Amino acid sequence: MPRPQKHVFICNQARPAGHPRGSCAEKDCKAVTDEFFRQWQARNAFGQVSVTYSGCLGPCSIGPSVLVYPENVMYGNVTVDDVSEIFEKHLLGGEIVTRLQAPTDVW
Amino acid sequence: MPRPQKHVFICNQARPAGHPRGSCAEKDCKAVTDEFFRQWQARNAFGQVSVTYSGCLGPCSIGPSVLVYPENVMYGNVTVDDVSEIFEKHLLGGEIVTRLQAPTDVW
Repeated sequence: MPRPQKHVFICNQARPAGHPRGSCAEKDCKAVTDEFFRQWQARNAFGQVSVTYSGCLGPCSIGPSVLVYPENVMYGNVTVDDVSEIFEKHLLGGEIVTRLQAPTDVW
Repeated sequence: MPRPQKHVFICNQARPAGHPRGSCAEKDCKAVTDEFFRQWQARNAFGQVSVTYSGCLGPCSIGPSVLVYPENVMYGNVTVDDVSEIFEKHLLGGEIVTRLQAPTDVW
């Protein structure tokens, strides 16, 4: 894949059941990740956008966490239904989806 | 971890032995990742830098691949011995390590 204009990272951190920090994995980040990859392909957006799953991004309390660079914008509590809006508005349109943005004390 | 000034991603993609694209895993990205985490802790750089392993970053031919945002700078063929220079010069000093930078036709 070429150098992207937007790069989205989806946290896939897992922790044992009952761990005090929880994890994005227990909040279904896998389904969110799959939806980003599905839309990447469906929109044929390989030239503009990169999609990468990742290890821990930090704010476990608001997982699933999704991070977009180069803006360094963190989204929290992202569901499968939110992916379309992030893809359309932010990754392709350059407009931050403020309703999903992590609080400033978190990121 | 708070919102970082620099965020480094280390590709940890694995593929079966003999796969035509190879992978960063077969080129010892795990040791490179461990060294980034070790130096992060030793330098107590949690306030300025984030370190995250990731899925495929793209340029498998020059793995292990290491990507720094917000600059969107890709480093290739990174060894354990290179980590100190990337950490010191780029992640803490803001200066790109040009000798390790991926060619412009790759990223």
